[in-house]
Amino acid sequence: MSSQLDEKLMVIFGRRSVRVYSPGEVDEGVVQKLLAAAMAAPSASGKNPWHFVVVRNRETLSRMSGTLAYGEILGTAALAIVVCGDLEVAHDNQLSYLLQDCSAAIENLLLCAHILGLGACWLGVHPRVERIKKIKEVFFLPPAVIPVACISLGYPGESKEPHAVYNPNCVHSESW
Amino acid sequence: MSSQLDEKLMVIFGRRSVRVYSPGEVDEGVVQKLLAAAMAAPSASGKNPWHFVVVRNRETLSRMSGTLAYGEILGTAALAIVVCGDLEVAHDNQLSYLLQDCSAAIENLLLCAHILGLGACWLGVHPRVERIKKIKEVFFLPPAVIPVACISLGYPGESKEPHAVYNPNCVHSESW
Repeated sequence: MSSQLDEKLMVIFGRRSVRVYSPGEVDEGVVQKLLAAAMAAPSASGKNPWHFVVVRNRETLSRMSGTLAYGEILGTAALAIVVCGDLEVAHDNQLSYLLQDCSAAIENLLLCAHILGLGACWLGVHPRVERIKKIKEVFFLPPAVIPVACISLGYPGESKEPHAVYNPNCVHSESW
Repeated sequence: MSSQLDEKLMVIFGRRSVRVYSPGEVDEGVVQKLLAAAMAAPSASGKNPWHFVVVRNRETLSRMSGTLAYGEILGTAALAIVVCGDLEVAHDNQLSYLLQDCSAAIENLLLCAHILGLGACWLGVHPRVERIKKIKEVFFLPPAVIPVACISLGYPGESKEPHAVYNPNCVHSESW
């Protein structure tokens, strides 16, 4: 396999959840690239039901941190991106499609962060009722807009090796 | 921005849904790479609730095609991968996490297919009750295993340009 191909595959295999950040601002152009990557994901019936709230304000980050598992990592993150879906826009107004579409967008965003030398971590919101309520309050989300996750972002303050995760027990040939 | 960086970003921005395939088998090593990429996705609490059924049998592909939107494209696909999640394994047995985890895995799989020169398309299953029922029957899925989507795969028979999808209306600064 060519080294160029290997390098491209490392976009996927080299991505890890980074929860420790170094100081340093992430500039707007980089954030815009991350959001464009997220929006390059496929969505059910091409509805693109996603929305993104970019949060740099330290007080707001601090308000979010208490409600999330691992939320304390927002204390050193340069920013967070809250990924939400609009149930009125999602295909057939189905929560399932909203979650699938937003999750594909989040994975693109995480991979793009990795390409650009940033560290990122997916902090779950949905389906935890108390987290959804808190995030909706903090960001004044409209009723039909559901927060799926918060992505913490910053320059990596920890280094992780790619890890092999192939589990043959999860693979079935032709039938279960 | 360096051309090497641009090439890596094209992993994300160059991926398109490919629904027309050229003849040609996809070998097992390539399929294994796709599955490894899928399993490199993050999952809630690291539960990795995903399962993958690799389908090359033409009769089975034909049985699947009738139940899926765009299912007819399986007629010329080299194979399909049915992506399922196990509700007994998913974090807190929550369907939301199962859908998020499987969708992140699917996006990795689609991007890996693109890197490897394959074309792929995400064919929705969940939450359509009749599609779930049919896929569970065809593949003898255990009760707790929920099919999320079928991914059609093959050598591309159509060529698509990357398309810009950045929508500023989906981006919010600090608050909605």
